[in-house]
Amino acid sequence: MRVVIAVGGNAMTAADGSARPADQQAAIETAVEPVAELISAGHQVVLTHGNGPQVGNLLVKNELAAAVVPPVPLDWCGAQTQATVGLLMLNALDRALAARGSKVRTATVVSRTEVAADDPGFAAPSKPIGRYLSQAEAAVMAGHGQHWQDRGERGWRRVVASPEPVRCLDAPAVLALLAAGFAVVCSGGGGIPVVADGSPSGYRGVEAVIDKDLTAALLAGTLAADRLVIATDVEHAVLGWGTEHARPLTGIGVGELEALIARGEFTSGSMEPKVLAACRFARRSGKPAAITSLGAIAAALAGTAGTIVHPDRLDPV
Amino acid sequence: MRVVIAVGGNAMTAADGSARPADQQAAIETAVEPVAELISAGHQVVLTHGNGPQVGNLLVKNELAAAVVPPVPLDWCGAQTQATVGLLMLNALDRALAARGSKVRTATVVSRTEVAADDPGFAAPSKPIGRYLSQAEAAVMAGHGQHWQDRGERGWRRVVASPEPVRCLDAPAVLALLAAGFAVVCSGGGGIPVVADGSPSGYRGVEAVIDKDLTAALLAGTLAADRLVIATDVEHAVLGWGTEHARPLTGIGVGELEALIARGEFTSGSMEPKVLAACRFARRSGKPAAITSLGAIAAALAGTAGTIVHPDRLDPV
Repeated sequence: MRVVIAVGGNAMTAADGSARPADQQAAIETAVEPVAELISAGHQVVLTHGNGPQVGNLLVKNELAAAVVPPVPLDWCGAQTQATVGLLMLNALDRALAARGSKVRTATVVSRTEVAADDPGFAAPSKPIGRYLSQAEAAVMAGHGQHWQDRGERGWRRVVASPEPVRCLDAPAVLALLAAGFAVVCSGGGGIPVVADGSPSGYRGVEAVIDKDLTAALLAGTLAADRLVIATDVEHAVLGWGTEHARPLTGIGVGELEALIARGEFTSGSMEPKVLAACRFARRSGKPAAITSLGAIAAALAGTAGTIVHPDRLDPV
Repeated sequence: MRVVIAVGGNAMTAADGSARPADQQAAIETAVEPVAELISAGHQVVLTHGNGPQVGNLLVKNELAAAVVPPVPLDWCGAQTQATVGLLMLNALDRALAARGSKVRTATVVSRTEVAADDPGFAAPSKPIGRYLSQAEAAVMAGHGQHWQDRGERGWRRVVASPEPVRCLDAPAVLALLAAGFAVVCSGGGGIPVVADGSPSGYRGVEAVIDKDLTAALLAGTLAADRLVIATDVEHAVLGWGTEHARPLTGIGVGELEALIARGEFTSGSMEPKVLAACRFARRSGKPAAITSLGAIAAALAGTAGTIVHPDRLDPV
């Protein structure tokens, strides 16, 4: 099977959330083990990943060096994390595959994601990123063209657009590599956000953050994947999370899950984009999507673990 | 023809040497025009690039944020520049190709270069990089495991190993993309330096800087390229540079050029690695290499411009 696996940015940091280089390396070495297992078992795997903690560090550097080195835009930060996380994933996957006697090669592709220039997110940036600053510090960064908001007691925080992913521009390269037998790392951090600039095949980077799970769903559809697996830190999506009525979702039809999303049953910015991504893939491709923990992805592909979103099962579980 | 083109990091900055994002974008848009012309003419092109000014900026950020965010190692800095320069090159090439009616697609591959763990460079790091700091500032960075040297009046400067490139680990991905008709950007900054870690297919990043021209020669050989073109800011390598006996080199045999290099006729760290890279490719592949300006690369491929290093022409020019 061709499988797209999305791994959260938090799976690539230490338990304390630190994104120190050595911690990222150790976390990624752990994270790729079940992925290497799938590849060794003969699956065609495309691995994508979040980059929240990693971009957070780059934004701090932007701020602290702003007086000496011009801050780089958010699309550059995203690109930078694709390469550093990609490098660690290549090294870790190569080792994990060789340990299993697999001859499958790996590649990391720098990947752009087209978003619409008129996406509502650009008119009213609302996704907070990075750390809190004082008004004076925020003013320096605002002078570089960034949007900062007064968030009350904790201070000011940068807000950016989080537009819908429209197209994975570099999917043809991923397809060529899959056809040649590679396992591919791509579209990290939801892909580098670009908008069409009006010229033929013309694109330019934009300051935005794209949800990595929504991009994973788009990518999986573009690549005609057989499964989308969204790996997170829990084995199931849960209804009534944190209440005494909490109930893990196992198998569920896409229509039913869409209704639950519409009722606001999931935490926005956390589980909501994951269930939304699973629904989009299942509805558009007619194939199942899974949400589960990294360790359970093989079982989820077999249908014996995780939240499995079925394209054709509209009756209640 | 399959052509590997190496572009200097300085071709990707403003005339004042600044590596501001907008300046890098504008410079790259100019730099890719002759490259797009070659691709449109039917050549299979692999584009690689330097990253000196770009890494310089990242090192400043490492320093200024060191108290808040742990500095990232030099291999990560190299990876980061592969993605940012790669992103700009993808956008610029796609636009330039579409303007010429070309349907050729582009891809950027995150690329590692293996170096030997026992390369003499690691025992005695000697390549100065980044800016000068005070002794106290240098001590902070040395505390993060870096080597800093007292360089006299101007202060302290970081020194790193500049090991020989041994193997382009990600060349198979480049070959797969070439076979599928892509123009490929790869091995930026000489490639991300890694060493074998003793386990099968096991590699880890190391703190080093690899000469991008020497990697380009290795890459061109690995890819069985028909030509290596080293694009710089002069149309020819020059003998007696800066003297009244200055003489541009046009055609020259590899043996003769090797003898000139051995006599110290070229500036180390500047023209020397370029002529050395050209010699290595010509000698190992039996095919010509060229050193010329970006605008003259098409003419250099036709043999009518630049310094052409012939593999089989050992007689004096």
